[in-house]
Amino acid sequence: MVLKRAKDTELAMLGLGRKNFIIRLKAGTKFQTHLGILLHDDLINQPWGSQVASHLGKIFTLMQPTLHDILLHTPRESQIIFPKDIGTILLRLSIKPGSQVIEAGTGSGALTTALAWSVGENGHVYSYDKRADMQALASNNLTRVGLENRISFRLQDISLGMEEIDIDAIFLDLASPERYLPHVRKSLSNAGTFGSILPTTNQVSSLLRGLEANGFTNIDVCETFIRYYKVIPDRLRPVDRMVGHTGYLVFARPLIDD
Amino acid sequence: MVLKRAKDTELAMLGLGRKNFIIRLKAGTKFQTHLGILLHDDLINQPWGSQVASHLGKIFTLMQPTLHDILLHTPRESQIIFPKDIGTILLRLSIKPGSQVIEAGTGSGALTTALAWSVGENGHVYSYDKRADMQALASNNLTRVGLENRISFRLQDISLGMEEIDIDAIFLDLASPERYLPHVRKSLSNAGTFGSILPTTNQVSSLLRGLEANGFTNIDVCETFIRYYKVIPDRLRPVDRMVGHTGYLVFARPLIDD
Amino acid sequence: MVLKRAKDTELAMLGLGRKNFIIRLKAGTKFQTHLGILLHDDLINQPWGSQVASHLGKIFTLMQPTLHDILLHTPRESQIIFPKDIGTILLRLSIKPGSQVIEAGTGSGALTTALAWSVGENGHVYSYDKRADMQALASNNLTRVGLENRISFRLQDISLGMEEIDIDAIFLDLASPERYLPHVRKSLSNAGTFGSILPTTNQVSSLLRGLEANGFTNIDVCETFIRYYKVIPDRLRPVDRMVGHTGYLVFARPLIDD
Amino acid sequence: MVLKRAKDTELAMLGLGRKNFIIRLKAGTKFQTHLGILLHDDLINQPWGSQVASHLGKIFTLMQPTLHDILLHTPRESQIIFPKDIGTILLRLSIKPGSQVIEAGTGSGALTTALAWSVGENGHVYSYDKRADMQALASNNLTRVGLENRISFRLQDISLGMEEIDIDAIFLDLASPERYLPHVRKSLSNAGTFGSILPTTNQVSSLLRGLEANGFTNIDVCETFIRYYKVIPDRLRPVDRMVGHTGYLVFARPLIDD
Repeated sequence: MVLKRAKDTELAMLGLGRKNFIIRLKAGTKFQTHLGILLHDDLINQPWGSQVASHLGKIFTLMQPTLHDILLHTPRESQIIFPKDIGTILLRLSIKPGSQVIEAGTGSGALTTALAWSVGENGHVYSYDKRADMQALASNNLTRVGLENRISFRLQDISLGMEEIDIDAIFLDLASPERYLPHVRKSLSNAGTFGSILPTTNQVSSLLRGLEANGFTNIDVCETFIRYYKVIPDRLRPVDRMVGHTGYLVFARPLIDD
Repeated sequence: MVLKRAKDTELAMLGLGRKNFIIRLKAGTKFQTHLGILLHDDLINQPWGSQVASHLGKIFTLMQPTLHDILLHTPRESQIIFPKDIGTILLRLSIKPGSQVIEAGTGSGALTTALAWSVGENGHVYSYDKRADMQALASNNLTRVGLENRISFRLQDISLGMEEIDIDAIFLDLASPERYLPHVRKSLSNAGTFGSILPTTNQVSSLLRGLEANGFTNIDVCETFIRYYKVIPDRLRPVDRMVGHTGYLVFARPLIDD
Repeated sequence: MVLKRAKDTELAMLGLGRKNFIIRLKAGTKFQTHLGILLHDDLINQPWGSQVASHLGKIFTLMQPTLHDILLHTPRESQIIFPKDIGTILLRLSIKPGSQVIEAGTGSGALTTALAWSVGENGHVYSYDKRADMQALASNNLTRVGLENRISFRLQDISLGMEEIDIDAIFLDLASPERYLPHVRKSLSNAGTFGSILPTTNQVSSLLRGLEANGFTNIDVCETFIRYYKVIPDRLRPVDRMVGHTGYLVFARPLIDD
Repeated sequence: MVLKRAKDTELAMLGLGRKNFIIRLKAGTKFQTHLGILLHDDLINQPWGSQVASHLGKIFTLMQPTLHDILLHTPRESQIIFPKDIGTILLRLSIKPGSQVIEAGTGSGALTTALAWSVGENGHVYSYDKRADMQALASNNLTRVGLENRISFRLQDISLGMEEIDIDAIFLDLASPERYLPHVRKSLSNAGTFGSILPTTNQVSSLLRGLEANGFTNIDVCETFIRYYKVIPDRLRPVDRMVGHTGYLVFARPLIDD
């Protein structure tokens, strides 16, 4: 088997114990933490999976980051949607290579990244947010992982509507998604899927009322949880603390009145 | 907006309340349950999202099934991997359009379906199982959803090894996955990802020992949970019962000895 | 050690595998299930923990039922409060030997049983319900476990108030507990504790508003979960299904306006 | 209703928002935190539930602590058993007024406190630990809550056996409880209950093997979880983080060989 090697300008992850760092390789630069310095030139052309020592003797493993790694390490200025929820969102929205998707708001771009990753080169994501600073951050995050060509950022409040029509999936991560459901109906394909994430039960009740009022069906509400274990074979046990809440996920499909 | 319509030979879902049925549309045939009969000819060319009555007056909604719907309704003769786990598996294995993936065993083909869906037309899935009956069922399931071209079934015990090399992701749903780790190392790209699902804690301990012995790193063990709600806005509450256990998910990355 | 033996008129549990039956021993009668017949006379004077065969050769273990066993097997005509919640309720209400407690409604008497058990001979429980049939069932259930002397049943709608004052703890298992908070304030000691269980989030919001309006503090809302395992040492794993929801528990303490 | 008032030498809790402090009232002393100073003389004879201001103007509520409050605030030098588990332990061990109970090890005395509370004046708890420092701490903790008369501390390794016989319930919070099961059998009444808490799955498997080998039946393994909510009626939602693991609870009953 010919080993695959890390190339200049590729995304890379350096792992040490439970700690991982994601970097974009660039000849002539260096990676620096309290665990020591590594020259990118010493990483470039190394096989993925090899071990490299910092100048402090700390041994890092050079890995290609997975989508999960990338999502967990999304640089953020807002609460991101967590991988535990993103996995379910992708299945429920039925995202696939070629899908056309709208999300609002953009936030720090974690879900944006997962959507762009999954729609492939022939799909597209339209991401709305009224805050220029968040879109600038998300744009950097998408560029960092090389998915910027699959995204169009719209610096626009969706209370003014969305430009696109016939969209396969629309996901709203906004405080009062029920307000925008008439716009969702205009942009979403009649074969499409709708989803939202909401932190409070009161918001879920409001969205459920809105979905009924705006002709949606196949409505589902769920929460997801993930519980990690310490990976010691002779002392296998869950970790002490876990995420107890991110948000309620709501999914629905549009009804057509003939 | 031009309405998208259900076409002859397409996959369709008929929903009534919390009950959904997935069918392949075929002119001249009929859909029959205790809720009444519907002629496929009355469904073909209807817009997705429209409502159609059975001869007993029950109103069904005609929908394009999502990946999640398809997975939930996989015809099965074995325990399938649940959507709650599949979402996490896809992210952790970093599956994307173009990925080359191996899974073993095939089982009823639920994960196979999700993998084939996600790798797109340019990716491929190699699915190993030593049981011909399971592969026949899985093959039918993949054909049913139109993804058969993205799969190669291998009727083979992987204790004999796997034919492919340089694979992006390998997932084992087998009783003693640690036995096959040397084969995994031969077939898995050094940049690739490994995953497994196991029902018991004893198996997890054994796999963890095997992963250490076979040069894996970045090892994680987790469980996922999903909790559904009744979708009544004025009486919002979780449903009474939930799935308490499917399996422990284990993920790892290969180390390269220079 | 002198063995303790099952005596005539005592409460007993017969266990076989995961199946348990609770009976009141009575000389001359018999225990009959599809697993066979056992004469009470063959059980009376047997040591607790001994094994006895039914006429079909099934081996039962004779045990003194725990409070947990009794609660799980409460004969019921309504949803009972589950042991997983009762454990928390007893701690949060600070029930102890000698406590004076009010509960409403009585329901089938599971919580009533736990309260009566915990307050001991010097405490007392006042149990309100407007349904005579439920109180009759609960009364039978309390008599069955020999705790009837610690309970006074009040066949009365608490919208008319409660007779007792200076009570240590009041627990409401009713649809709209916020309606009765002025009455709770009159009957509850200023050093006392208040609790409630509610199935929906909307009810929790309403009760929280009521607690603030009626001078309560130290308010807490929580849910409890219990996850059982299959007890096979070499194949240790959680059981497939679990209870996903019973109710939200709400606790509070009264404020005094000087 | 005559108001109950805080008396000199009583245990009291001072609450401010989500923060609670438990103190023993003592005339002439003061309570001091970064939230200001309160003189005990200003608290003594105040009605429970009244509000008192610190010298910094912070308003505290004076409350009688519940058992739950006391357990949560147990001064500790070791991991304590959490209230979420203690509620279940009390029900499963069937603790009631008058019970005779053994626990080992003592640890910081949280479970000891709950047992002493529940057995009442006519019951007794024997608490074994080989560490004198832990028993000194636990002894202080029990004295602090006024339950010291219900406890006998045994500074002794239970591998040497336990002095008492015919005990109603024995609970082991030790690393390898299976080692002590022969001793448990000697001290535990044949009508009694056994329990243990263990952090790892490997320990659970070992204990299960030991229970089978030592003639136990009615074996159960479970985990408990508690999920707290923010108590804002219009923005009801769980808190972000929760305890993901404390330990596996194991319960069993002794079998008698005739």
